[in-house]
Amino acid sequence: MRNLLTGLLFLLCVQSAYSEDGYRLWLRYDKIKDERLLNLYRSRIKNIYLPGTSGTIAVMKSELTTALKGLLDKEVPFTDKITSGTLVIKIATLGIAVPESYTITSGKSQNITIGSPDDAGLLYGMFHLLRLLQTHSDVSSLNVIESPKIKTRILNHWDNLDRTVERGYAGFSIWDWHRLPEYVDPRYTDYARANASIGINAVSLTNVNANALLITPAYLEKVKVLADLFRPWHIKVFLTARFSAPMEIGGLKTADPLDADVKQWWKNKADEIYKYVPDFGGFLVKANSEGQPGPQNYNRTHADGANMLAEAVGPHGGIVMWRAFVYDSNVPDDRAKQAYSEFKPLDGKFNDNVIVQVKNGPIDFQPREPYHPLFGTMKSTPLMMELQITQEYLGQATHLVFLPVLWKENIDQADLKESNALKAVAGVANIGNDRNWTGHLFGQSNWYGYGRLAWDYNAASKQIADEWTRMTFGNDADLVQNVSALMLSSHETIVNYMTPLGLHHIMGANHHYGPGPWVSKMSRADWTSTYYHKADSLGIGFDRTDKGSKALEQYPNDAQKLWDSKDTCPEQLLLWFHHVGWNHKIAGTTLWDHLCNTYDKGLTNVRDMQTSWKSMSSKVDSDRFKHVSMLLDRQVKEAELWHHSCILYFQTFSKKPIPNGINVGDKPLEYYIGLQYPYAPGIRPRW
Amino acid sequence: MRNLLTGLLFLLCVQSAYSEDGYRLWLRYDKIKDERLLNLYRSRIKNIYLPGTSGTIAVMKSELTTALKGLLDKEVPFTDKITSGTLVIKIATLGIAVPESYTITSGKSQNITIGSPDDAGLLYGMFHLLRLLQTHSDVSSLNVIESPKIKTRILNHWDNLDRTVERGYAGFSIWDWHRLPEYVDPRYTDYARANASIGINAVSLTNVNANALLITPAYLEKVKVLADLFRPWHIKVFLTARFSAPMEIGGLKTADPLDADVKQWWKNKADEIYKYVPDFGGFLVKANSEGQPGPQNYNRTHADGANMLAEAVGPHGGIVMWRAFVYDSNVPDDRAKQAYSEFKPLDGKFNDNVIVQVKNGPIDFQPREPYHPLFGTMKSTPLMMELQITQEYLGQATHLVFLPVLWKENIDQADLKESNALKAVAGVANIGNDRNWTGHLFGQSNWYGYGRLAWDYNAASKQIADEWTRMTFGNDADLVQNVSALMLSSHETIVNYMTPLGLHHIMGANHHYGPGPWVSKMSRADWTSTYYHKADSLGIGFDRTDKGSKALEQYPNDAQKLWDSKDTCPEQLLLWFHHVGWNHKIAGTTLWDHLCNTYDKGLTNVRDMQTSWKSMSSKVDSDRFKHVSMLLDRQVKEAELWHHSCILYFQTFSKKPIPNGINVGDKPLEYYIGLQYPYAPGIRPRW
Repeated sequence: MRNLLTGLLFLLCVQSAYSEDGYRLWLRYDKIKDERLLNLYRSRIKNIYLPGTSGTIAVMKSELTTALKGLLDKEVPFTDKITSGTLVIKIATLGIAVPESYTITSGKSQNITIGSPDDAGLLYGMFHLLRLLQTHSDVSSLNVIESPKIKTRILNHWDNLDRTVERGYAGFSIWDWHRLPEYVDPRYTDYARANASIGINAVSLTNVNANALLITPAYLEKVKVLADLFRPWHIKVFLTARFSAPMEIGGLKTADPLDADVKQWWKNKADEIYKYVPDFGGFLVKANSEGQPGPQNYNRTHADGANMLAEAVGPHGGIVMWRAFVYDSNVPDDRAKQAYSEFKPLDGKFNDNVIVQVKNGPIDFQPREPYHPLFGTMKSTPLMMELQITQEYLGQATHLVFLPVLWKENIDQADLKESNALKAVAGVANIGNDRNWTGHLFGQSNWYGYGRLAWDYNAASKQIADEWTRMTFGNDADLVQNVSALMLSSHETIVNYMTPLGLHHIMGANHHYGPGPWVSKMSRADWTSTYYHKADSLGIGFDRTDKGSKALEQYPNDAQKLWDSKDTCPEQLLLWFHHVGWNHKIAGTTLWDHLCNTYDKGLTNVRDMQTSWKSMSSKVDSDRFKHVSMLLDRQVKEAELWHHSCILYFQTFSKKPIPNGINVGDKPLEYYIGLQYPYAPGIRPRW
Repeated sequence: MRNLLTGLLFLLCVQSAYSEDGYRLWLRYDKIKDERLLNLYRSRIKNIYLPGTSGTIAVMKSELTTALKGLLDKEVPFTDKITSGTLVIKIATLGIAVPESYTITSGKSQNITIGSPDDAGLLYGMFHLLRLLQTHSDVSSLNVIESPKIKTRILNHWDNLDRTVERGYAGFSIWDWHRLPEYVDPRYTDYARANASIGINAVSLTNVNANALLITPAYLEKVKVLADLFRPWHIKVFLTARFSAPMEIGGLKTADPLDADVKQWWKNKADEIYKYVPDFGGFLVKANSEGQPGPQNYNRTHADGANMLAEAVGPHGGIVMWRAFVYDSNVPDDRAKQAYSEFKPLDGKFNDNVIVQVKNGPIDFQPREPYHPLFGTMKSTPLMMELQITQEYLGQATHLVFLPVLWKENIDQADLKESNALKAVAGVANIGNDRNWTGHLFGQSNWYGYGRLAWDYNAASKQIADEWTRMTFGNDADLVQNVSALMLSSHETIVNYMTPLGLHHIMGANHHYGPGPWVSKMSRADWTSTYYHKADSLGIGFDRTDKGSKALEQYPNDAQKLWDSKDTCPEQLLLWFHHVGWNHKIAGTTLWDHLCNTYDKGLTNVRDMQTSWKSMSSKVDSDRFKHVSMLLDRQVKEAELWHHSCILYFQTFSKKPIPNGINVGDKPLEYYIGLQYPYAPGIRPRW
């Protein structure tokens, strides 16, 4: 008997290695276990009426067949005749004629009906209905009306042509360029399915630190294959444009955007690209930023550069996404101010088919930042927010952190609803060739959450966490509550043990992994940590008020008013905007004690996350349970590194005792300073 | 009805994406479909008697449970009592007391009995029995006696710590160093299972172009986790030693192998490694080769360097594998001669626990080479043959080529049976983090074939191809015959369209992908193609007779005699040893015509491979069928590139017409010379 049990245990362990590896993402389609619901769903979906012959209709048939076979454990046939229990999916004139919108209705009749003015809306309506089934929702009286709040919802891959991924932590690029166009990895299809299921409708395939070879015929042949494959899933391809391409692959002597030959070269190039990809979305450009070439090399403005490219793709309906992530260590001004300083004067000077792509905060994807001041101030230019799904500064693929909470903070502050930022949103992908796509299984929730927020930025983080948990782990109430709670608290926890009270950019140099508040020598001052935390014998924090860098001036009045005073500025942003004395009174104690206490709270809370997850062992399959457990163990160790080293480091300035009850381990600060991670992932090899 | 069929077709396509991705390798364990055999196997394996509590016994229980549940579609319990139909696996004194040996017997009793003097033999016997079941063999009267012909059967990974893989074409490294030691990828276990199933009992984890960081505590902690995981599967870990490590990580001023401090440093380092890995196998070293540091930097010999390391690991039972792959463009002598010239004089000067690792041929893993002259001539030194499983010069991951045919050629020529090369054999792995492990599904057959030949180099290629096909695709007689035939002919086909008649090293520069006979300018002459083919107005080929480089002198007399004359030298090696006139009579025509005809035969035959595979469409699941089909389509295109460009290029020397009936396309030679593959995989980034 013991042998038998041992055998069965082995069986479970070994067999599940093949099945529960996370590849299926949130599109698992396992059989509905609740008998009542199963019967309800079966009675409402006896067959499917889905007329049409487009590519999108074809892939919908494929998806419905797979999904319903899984969820309902029966073959659901397609029919040409609507009867009781037919799922009806058809083009329909809705009250609103917004592209991609859809309705899902059910009621007295036994039919569920999905209607949309276009195939895309039908596709999204289908995935919405499947999500309702996966999350055990009642479908007996549906009255769903949905339309996207943002037109272009794009993923930005930072994938290089050699398959390394800048800031990628899930293995290497899923794009197997070398074997394209002949070899088409089946993974590309599953990638498209996943994106379509959450409303992502555009993708930029390669790094914004661009390679001109991408737009040569050899690579355009490969791009075409991907574009053809993505098209039925309603996903447009964008390409990153290297500004100096006319010189590098075109044989011109300049890339000056006002040069007639350069303009003509880009027009010809655009015409050529559209021959390969008739619905090509357009260019994504990083120019005059971190060493990339751009119009300023020729004393032209960002607007000159963007407009030149916009004129090339415009006749074909293409657009240009021009990044505002610019800063220069030679400019003697706070890095946080520089994008605004450069772009605000250009407001209104961009062509209609240019969107300026602005990161959510003014520095660079920190665990917490205030929103970027261009939002709400650059009113005559379409802006789009760039969010980072990959966890460059957030523990990479060893940390569980649910990012919609972070994004929502900036989206709400920036008040996107009222801004002109409605046209597009970008998310820097966390996808790699790891079997589970995102390295950390919970990284999937950020891909998912990005898509859901891109569709509707008013969606609540809790709703998204709840949906994802149900689709990923199942509908057990206790499980959903615990996992969802763990996710929702994860962001604040990580901020607390990494960069509490508005601290920022104090990670390890280059790779941005692990603590590095002591980093003070880099080729550029604005890449060091000391530039940002400015700890000294008096206090800590970056004074950005009118007594300091004056960055606060760039914000609208109400934000200025709130953040200008140490007393009204929320403690979450205190050290972002103020240099604060160690003895400053806060939270009933001194700043020093409160800083230490906040680090300690973060460490306590990540241990709580670990405990909470371990309590779920009986409710999650052993493979995924172990995967997450191992990573949480690592995360706790990393949190200890942050906690111990940051408190010890900042103590060298405050010269104050560490509050009672806070354990910083038995190693001296030098130990932490000596830790090296020479092959931390995500750094682009220097070819 | 049509809708239903369409739906079912979609279902097949989509669902199988999850299942038939090649991850399971040859350990698929699908249910035996032949009812008669199923009943036979069930009656012979009712339960399992497997006493013992070692780690190896534990993983055997796991493997047997999974395998038999799959193959027999029933739970086979373990028992403490042997009865009729019990599979008996136990330690036993055999006629031969060779470690790892085993017997499998069955006969009148209903029992199958696996016996071995050690756990390793039981493990191998178990996999042998499972292979018999998978290949539908009769198990009713077994009398198997097996022992390995080579003691150490090692895989050499050329994986870098940044997860790039030098000459790797299956994605990136499976070793996720950054997340070790905490995060242990389940894939490591499946890797160990696969190796154990084919008798591989050692692995060197990282590139021979070594990184000293590997032997620092931060990495040894990670290595320990892998070694612990591999141990039950009877796999020892070796590490690549960077010769200059004492300077790079030890703070010494020299790495001179005769320096007392250097010796002591390595002794201490070895002691330290053995604390992490008590059964550490030893060091694998590339020194004074292609820019790597080594003893010659201090005017010491390879023997001095190897012996110094051997003394460090010797007290712990470790060995040193010292590579003989050395050549120097500053030495004014044929590259093919240089390893022999350097190492032959050192014969007898190596310590007992040093093995000199010699590539199968004297140049570098070409599609065809004569065997390396050190085999059979360096008689007082243990030698091991280094084979390349990864297809550096053989089409990489877009070519189907079954390499045991190539390896057998050199093994038979070198007469390993009589040499001292019995102690070890190395295979350069073709494994990466692609889902199917090897990029090309048929790459798995080379991993498999390497293991099987390492165990028994007398095994026939046909037997290995047959086994692998059955285990991978099933036992359908027609399928097995066709696929096996396709595999067995693949090597000659590729040689014919790439490097016929003894041509060699005429691939693209650096990446070694695609044709490049015109490559004539590199930083080293011995990396160019013209160095090797020496085509001129008179003829083509490298004269290595006593009128030329005299490389032939390095071989034993009988080989010299055979290869010395153009008339007796087999045409397969003709241009390796001779510069031959374009009008030389061969195969009833001129050399020029025969060269063209042979290229053409290769192209014809690869198209035959494509046709043969397509005829198997009904016998292979759609995923794997399509995977291989796409790659064969690509292979045909690449073969056309080779065929067209090489004939056009060599014609510029022969000035002769292309024989009638040979189609070299409509593009000029310049087109082919202009083709670039800037991101062909497998090149190590230049950090």
